[in-house]
Amino acid sequence: MLIALFPGDGIGPEIVAQAKRVLDALAIPGITYEEGLVGGAAYKAVGHPLPPETLELAKRADAILFGAVGDPDCDSLERHLRPEQAILGLRKELGLFSNLRPAKVFPELADASALKQEVASAIDLLIVRETNGDVYFGEKGMRKTPEGLREGYDIMSYNEEQVRKIAHQGFQAARARRGKLCSVDKANVLETSQLWRDVVIEVSADYPDVALSHMYVDNAAMQLVRNPGQFDVIVTGNMFGDILSDQASMCVGSIGMLASATLNDSNQGLYEPIHGSAPDIAGQGKANPLATVLSAGMMLRYSLNLPEQADRIEAAVAKALADGARSFDLGGTMSTVEMGDAVLAAL
Amino acid sequence: MLIALFPGDGIGPEIVAQAKRVLDALAIPGITYEEGLVGGAAYKAVGHPLPPETLELAKRADAILFGAVGDPDCDSLERHLRPEQAILGLRKELGLFSNLRPAKVFPELADASALKQEVASAIDLLIVRETNGDVYFGEKGMRKTPEGLREGYDIMSYNEEQVRKIAHQGFQAARARRGKLCSVDKANVLETSQLWRDVVIEVSADYPDVALSHMYVDNAAMQLVRNPGQFDVIVTGNMFGDILSDQASMCVGSIGMLASATLNDSNQGLYEPIHGSAPDIAGQGKANPLATVLSAGMMLRYSLNLPEQADRIEAAVAKALADGARSFDLGGTMSTVEMGDAVLAAL
Ligand SMILES: CC(C)[C@H](C(=O)O)[C@@H](O)C(=O)O
Ligand SMILES: CC(C)[C@H](C(=O)O)[C@@H](O)C(=O)O
Repeated sequence: MLIALFPGDGIGPEIVAQAKRVLDALAIPGITYEEGLVGGAAYKAVGHPLPPETLELAKRADAILFGAVGDPDCDSLERHLRPEQAILGLRKELGLFSNLRPAKVFPELADASALKQEVASAIDLLIVRETNGDVYFGEKGMRKTPEGLREGYDIMSYNEEQVRKIAHQGFQAARARRGKLCSVDKANVLETSQLWRDVVIEVSADYPDVALSHMYVDNAAMQLVRNPGQFDVIVTGNMFGDILSDQASMCVGSIGMLASATLNDSNQGLYEPIHGSAPDIAGQGKANPLATVLSAGMMLRYSLNLPEQADRIEAAVAKALADGARSFDLGGTMSTVEMGDAVLAAL
Repeated sequence: MLIALFPGDGIGPEIVAQAKRVLDALAIPGITYEEGLVGGAAYKAVGHPLPPETLELAKRADAILFGAVGDPDCDSLERHLRPEQAILGLRKELGLFSNLRPAKVFPELADASALKQEVASAIDLLIVRETNGDVYFGEKGMRKTPEGLREGYDIMSYNEEQVRKIAHQGFQAARARRGKLCSVDKANVLETSQLWRDVVIEVSADYPDVALSHMYVDNAAMQLVRNPGQFDVIVTGNMFGDILSDQASMCVGSIGMLASATLNDSNQGLYEPIHGSAPDIAGQGKANPLATVLSAGMMLRYSLNLPEQADRIEAAVAKALADGARSFDLGGTMSTVEMGDAVLAAL
């Protein structure tokens, strides 16, 4: 089994290093690792955020453990050269369409949220976001209006096949959890959403055991503040999922703790913390590596089919927290390496 | 001065009636009122959510006081016949492009938010949302892919003129407040956003006294939970504004208290509470009319140029709250009419 390690920019290398230590400690037979350049680091080294060798390695690998991309030095580059294109390119080229973002409060950290404790501690939801279509990947560009005005445009669209695939992911995830699926769209305004809603309803026929509801995206953004505990699984498109999943993770409070997976049809997956590259603290040993460690856990579960090892990682993180391990973002003083030590000690 | 009253559906008629009582009590010389049918009520009466007579009245009026639209009986109608089309049609036909949504916590209600009190009580922001363009009004439809699959599509676009107009609204609003403007977009993915950002930066040259920042929409959704007190004025497009303004109002907690204005170039405006038609409590005298009363206040301020009268309405609402007036949504037992009485008593 081959794992591609893509540390990327900012704090990426520091946090991926700790996740690698944890994986090493599990001594899983038959795992090999290869490292690749992505993001601003790749641009600076070889002139492109997703160089051909990186893409080739990604395709060969069973799973990708990804740090973070984003580098202020690259802000004024043309869009196709910016660090973020690495993640968009990997999603598209590998068909990574199903982005899974669990949001759950760790009991030890229940006070970290801006939400009242009783509201935050009820959060236990999973956002299933489509990441191969929508307004992200439609035709786009700058053009002139008939009056000669500059105009930017982006085509939003989904076809029934794309919606069907992600809907099945949502229903299956709900079936494995508490059996509730909320599909989020804007069908009162968008035709793309109307097709989305129609197809989700068609797919629901295969899942009579899952309770399906529909919510407009503006209302969903309200409900995620008012009462996030009402949600089990949310399934939504690329654009709305981008917004709602970040909002949901902030509701949990400790954004340094949240992992994500993005899968394709053959369970190849990209695993990354939901936080960014945090250039302001890069290289200072202040980053919290736990989201990346937990992402490695998701990798073992979803792409390598090693659920017991995944459980061990999750239990070790929980124990480390219970034993008082706190990085700066959690109000403590432990360094990135010390947080890694704490997980290893708990393993 | 002619004011069009469009009560609409659900609780609409009850709340507009109380706002009308408050306006009557101010005895403003030269104001006349005409009532029109909109939404599901209009569909049921004459077969269209925005009948020609209603549109004609709206165009003649100096301002529109709007209740709410939305009726579950209409859920299965074709989109162009649904109640929401009344609001979209009025925005488009009257060129109402500048939607202003202030979000501020009333000190008496600071505990109503799901956010911690210290987080919620710092909220004092204004969202300026463009409402004539974006993916709402571009070409849209259902088509077949080359493989014969159903596909829904919607074109997102903005031209420089549209962005310039709303950017000026944002900068002027910021200048009249605390001098901070945050423009929200997704320029790392969307060409529409890239044009948006370019034009906002161009317009900023006219406002050297306003501090401009830019934020991606996913980050904005996080920051509105983490630390909403950081924002003064947010300017954004139609789609992102729909989501963020609802999220922001829920952060305040008491959604029954929040007013909005949507203006065109000649300061004609549509004024409405941000909450919906609440069909579940319609006709029971349980609705909180204060958001509509405050919307009437905004109407006096922005479209009728009567700032002293607007101040009187706002002061009366604050006094009514301070005197203990609480409708059901605020944890009290006062009816819609009793809430109106309380404002009248405070006037
Ligand atoms: C970096 C950016 C292009 C990306 C997205 O919008 O998908 C990010 O925000 C995410 O959610 O993974
Ligand atoms: C009813 C709907 C079409 C409308 C919108 O999306 O603009 C509403 O949500 C709003 O924000 O006024």
